[in-house]
Amino acid sequence: MSDRLTGPVEVIGTGLLGTSVALACRRAGLDVLLTDVSAEHVRTASALGAGRARAAEDRPQLVVVAVPPDHLGVTIARALDDGDAVVTDVGSVKAGPYAAVAAHPGASRYVGGHPMAGSERSGPLAASADLFEGRPWAVVPHPGSHPDAVALVEQLVAICAAVAVRLTPEDHDRAVARTSHVPHLLASLAAGRLADAPADHLRLSGQGVRDVTRVAAGSPELYGQIVAANADAVLGLLGEVRGELDALIAAIAAADGGALASLLEQGVAGTRAIPGKHGGPVRPTATVFVSVPDEPGVLARLFAAAGEAGVNIEDVRIDHDLGRAVGLVELLVEEGRDEHLRESLESRGWATHR
Amino acid sequence: MSDRLTGPVEVIGTGLLGTSVALACRRAGLDVLLTDVSAEHVRTASALGAGRARAAEDRPQLVVVAVPPDHLGVTIARALDDGDAVVTDVGSVKAGPYAAVAAHPGASRYVGGHPMAGSERSGPLAASADLFEGRPWAVVPHPGSHPDAVALVEQLVAICAAVAVRLTPEDHDRAVARTSHVPHLLASLAAGRLADAPADHLRLSGQGVRDVTRVAAGSPELYGQIVAANADAVLGLLGEVRGELDALIAAIAAADGGALASLLEQGVAGTRAIPGKHGGPVRPTATVFVSVPDEPGVLARLFAAAGEAGVNIEDVRIDHDLGRAVGLVELLVEEGRDEHLRESLESRGWATHR
Repeated sequence: MSDRLTGPVEVIGTGLLGTSVALACRRAGLDVLLTDVSAEHVRTASALGAGRARAAEDRPQLVVVAVPPDHLGVTIARALDDGDAVVTDVGSVKAGPYAAVAAHPGASRYVGGHPMAGSERSGPLAASADLFEGRPWAVVPHPGSHPDAVALVEQLVAICAAVAVRLTPEDHDRAVARTSHVPHLLASLAAGRLADAPADHLRLSGQGVRDVTRVAAGSPELYGQIVAANADAVLGLLGEVRGELDALIAAIAAADGGALASLLEQGVAGTRAIPGKHGGPVRPTATVFVSVPDEPGVLARLFAAAGEAGVNIEDVRIDHDLGRAVGLVELLVEEGRDEHLRESLESRGWATHR
Repeated sequence: MSDRLTGPVEVIGTGLLGTSVALACRRAGLDVLLTDVSAEHVRTASALGAGRARAAEDRPQLVVVAVPPDHLGVTIARALDDGDAVVTDVGSVKAGPYAAVAAHPGASRYVGGHPMAGSERSGPLAASADLFEGRPWAVVPHPGSHPDAVALVEQLVAICAAVAVRLTPEDHDRAVARTSHVPHLLASLAAGRLADAPADHLRLSGQGVRDVTRVAAGSPELYGQIVAANADAVLGLLGEVRGELDALIAAIAAADGGALASLLEQGVAGTRAIPGKHGGPVRPTATVFVSVPDEPGVLARLFAAAGEAGVNIEDVRIDHDLGRAVGLVELLVEEGRDEHLRESLESRGWATHR
């Protein structure tokens, strides 16, 4: 086994993720072989420059399995059967695929993977060589993975311009249960309460409920498969959530302000535990609000004005109004830069407030 | 009682909301009287141009009570005792204040209010006459409220450039329990699970968990008071959430894909029930992703390029990366305009993907 990725790379499953990996490998000059149950998908991906259909005599060095969650285990095992290539995948859950290959004679050639990237769109037409740029990509060796196989997968991550985060299969699945699956399920529960609410009640919806529920718009079929594949870790955390929900209900019913505050304080601590921009600690930011009319080009003018003030915008939110063609733009900037930005914008005629 | 707002307007409580109301009334040319337990706050608000300290002989036409939730009822009752002014408030929950004044001989002069605006900052220095621009403002008469009193409060809402949404006290409290308090509590539960997670697990945090948990960073003291004041409506919904959580746990434990999908589908339906921009139905949008370096002025250049393409940006998200000085900007535009924007940006040298 070589520890240097020279290709060919085979991509099995030419949807959004697989075709994006293929495009990044082609950009790096590697020979890319495409396989999919849909010949149409292969033709489309190939026409986009993602590689060529795999031929019988082709011998890949690395196979990237990018099929739906329900088909991961069997596809990985079949890829290990077929030759001596290193095999990785881009599935959201890692325990299942590992269990499916653990007893395989070629198991040392398998290293799991999970790029933290995606889109509400799917299919090869939505793919891009840049999809993974700057995103975390979990590299998940099992105890029997060969070091050279791990090295190859980490080179694939580098070619995709992603940031490798090495975790065991168990740690990976617990991590995504906590940072992705359980937040998604709680967002679904919050959104579910809106489904049959009176319309005039929903007119009071602000930015908060939009943020909390946004991810709940994702595909029930896909998320159902992901959650089912990570049932153990998700159930463990949902058990904790249930205990905390019971405590919350008891605290509110008993008008126990101290218990309620301590539950809310744990939430505050959790928001502070999420890594900040560029993986570092969360930097304190300050907010500048600007009222803008809803017309093409207004954000361009606003950002040009902020740029002239020499202030780096850390984040932007647009808080849509109700019933009027005006929007409120929230600019997040480094703490201590907000007053300068506000003054600078006001001197250019913008309506800011705090 | 007159049905025309001519002033003076008294604002009791010169924090963020009270001072912002005062500034908007001053902008409209009304005489504004300021009252606060903190003489320092009154001096600050007055220096900002929000009005003058109330003198003993002053007789307000309209009193706006903007004190913390725990002091609302008693302050409203005292304002009704003092003269014949119409009294409103800006509190987040309406049942408690109404109960506190229902038996008052001047109850017909009370009409509840609740502007859906705020900030993570507080105090008069954070105030702005524009704080309420385009925001929903619940106007909450009780069965005994005089029509002229309702008319005065709706004129106050118009002066603040907000959009009046008329609801009964019970409907208001059920509405905010659903669109604000319960989403906040579920965000706290999701965030609480992150508080003691291993740091390498949190490195997999993406934009989804950041969105779900953002509101949970709010003040535990303030939210504790708000939730306690709306205990009945919140407990009703939390009971529903608990039932759905039990169903979710049972579906996952039994590997019942159909039950899991139907819970997730209810969440999707909920996200679609939230009114869209400008209060209308949610318009279909498409997304254009652009990779940008993390440096001052880059968003200005990007938005200028989008403006030159003549495409209206409906919303913006910045997805921060992990460990690299690059960011991914997500531009939401009207469906059908995305391809034009993408081509236009690429022709100007921007790295877009789908």
